[in-house]
Amino acid sequence: MILTVTLNAALDVTWHVDRLTPRSSHRVDAAHERAGGKGVNVARVLASLGHTPIATGLTGGPTGRLIREGLHAAGIRDEFTDVAGDSRRTLAVVSRDDGDATVFNGRGPRIAEAEWEAFRRHYATLLPEARVVVLSGSVPPGLPGNAYAQLIHAAAKAGAATVLDTSGPALTAALKAGPDVVKPNADEITAATGRHDLRAAAAALRARGARAVVASAGPEGLYALTPEGGWRAKPPERLSGNPTGAGDACVAALAAGLAAGSSWTRMLREAVALSAAAVPCPAAGDVDAGVYERFRREVPVEALPAISDQQIT
Amino acid sequence: MILTVTLNAALDVTWHVDRLTPRSSHRVDAAHERAGGKGVNVARVLASLGHTPIATGLTGGPTGRLIREGLHAAGIRDEFTDVAGDSRRTLAVVSRDDGDATVFNGRGPRIAEAEWEAFRRHYATLLPEARVVVLSGSVPPGLPGNAYAQLIHAAAKAGAATVLDTSGPALTAALKAGPDVVKPNADEITAATGRHDLRAAAAALRARGARAVVASAGPEGLYALTPEGGWRAKPPERLSGNPTGAGDACVAALAAGLAAGSSWTRMLREAVALSAAAVPCPAAGDVDAGVYERFRREVPVEALPAISDQQIT
Repeated sequence: MILTVTLNAALDVTWHVDRLTPRSSHRVDAAHERAGGKGVNVARVLASLGHTPIATGLTGGPTGRLIREGLHAAGIRDEFTDVAGDSRRTLAVVSRDDGDATVFNGRGPRIAEAEWEAFRRHYATLLPEARVVVLSGSVPPGLPGNAYAQLIHAAAKAGAATVLDTSGPALTAALKAGPDVVKPNADEITAATGRHDLRAAAAALRARGARAVVASAGPEGLYALTPEGGWRAKPPERLSGNPTGAGDACVAALAAGLAAGSSWTRMLREAVALSAAAVPCPAAGDVDAGVYERFRREVPVEALPAISDQQIT
Repeated sequence: MILTVTLNAALDVTWHVDRLTPRSSHRVDAAHERAGGKGVNVARVLASLGHTPIATGLTGGPTGRLIREGLHAAGIRDEFTDVAGDSRRTLAVVSRDDGDATVFNGRGPRIAEAEWEAFRRHYATLLPEARVVVLSGSVPPGLPGNAYAQLIHAAAKAGAATVLDTSGPALTAALKAGPDVVKPNADEITAATGRHDLRAAAAALRARGARAVVASAGPEGLYALTPEGGWRAKPPERLSGNPTGAGDACVAALAAGLAAGSSWTRMLREAVALSAAAVPCPAAGDVDAGVYERFRREVPVEALPAISDQQIT
């Protein structure tokens, strides 16, 4: 079983306007709401692939209730811990004139120490069922700086593999706990390492504790540096659409591959195909089955020549 | 007693961002939520003046629950009718760099015919207590085109005066029911009549059924055309701040004046002072008591020479 952890779950709201004009008033014509947060999106992709993921994390308040109702509607097992604060909303304002989205992300509710402890206890009861634990997204205010590190240590102790998809200080602080896979995108890995070269940046994250690094570079595909070697996997064609959910689809494929004991070559092919399959879908957490089936047979995965650490650093 | 009607109540949400940049992603740093919709704001101003208004209208869903909790917290008597749809949210995104707000208004939930009938029955039970009925804001989808006209007729039959503050087709359709006062702003009155001259536009609205017209022209003050004559009232100085709540404060003053049987001169002086007192306050429904006390002694109200209908049209 794959357990997804979403510490900062969100209600993802999409509003359509004719055209976004700063400092003016807009009539919102159509609105769409759905349970979100990166871990929830990963669970949704896994469920659409036939997995039966468990979703846990922190939700609270009226917005938290809507998130949990959304999980139930999607048939995802809800093991969230309730907190006193109101869960955040994210808003994407989509302009009809160009289809572009302007996005707003809240910080999330402040979590009390006792709430974090209650979550950790509940998380520990879920770990014996988990082969893979996915830890995704931002961390709400009030949690300890090493929140993800604590969860990675507990997962490792229970024998579960971990996939971490976060950024900034939350990523940096989690590395020394030795996550099995971290999946930053190009901007995130550069911010964490100061390096623009993906290979050098990935090596730097491995040097700081990550066992494997899978860096996503949008339409350029994935770059992986693992204990078994390095690979590059690129989608066979460029799709237009909304890349927001591609990262979550990639993480879902990596988690499914780890749970199945797949080879890296196979995992990366699946990850590129599933990421690409998210692009034609307007909502994060959805994937286009046709694109996935076509791409998973066509994604080229190229092994990279071994290089020494000295060459990299 | 003053009864405020808000058919399209809203949860007014304010988000602060560093700078609004279309097509990019924003971190929302501070959020503020409060019960709104123009009629709710009017009730809030009346309550701050020591009145005990009753707030009615339509609310529903989780957002409706938050709106009603907000009313209770503000000590306003809640006589809203519950509907199945979720009440709308309005969002003001305020940029820290210039303090300007970019505003988004939802249309509101679709109201079923039976819900509208249930509201009308409840409204009828509140009318015997009401001296003045304030009808404010937009009309949610599903209501008949003459919704405000129906409410104005029922109020007149019960002997209550009416103040209408709406725009577009909702304003136009309500005129023939003979509202005692309509309070359009300059843009709204021009949209309804095709006339840019406030006096000619006000005369046109009176010709279509409004007994009195009080047009607001921002820092230029108020222009009133009534059965007893015409007046112009202008704030003694220009204040900087957020003019969003000025219209609702103006309506509150007009309703309070009608309830007290004040003269037009006095009512307009109060309306200008209370509108100006809303400008320094960030949230609609709040007024600055100091500005109000100072301005209400200083607002000049100038009687306009009588002109014939022929000169106007």
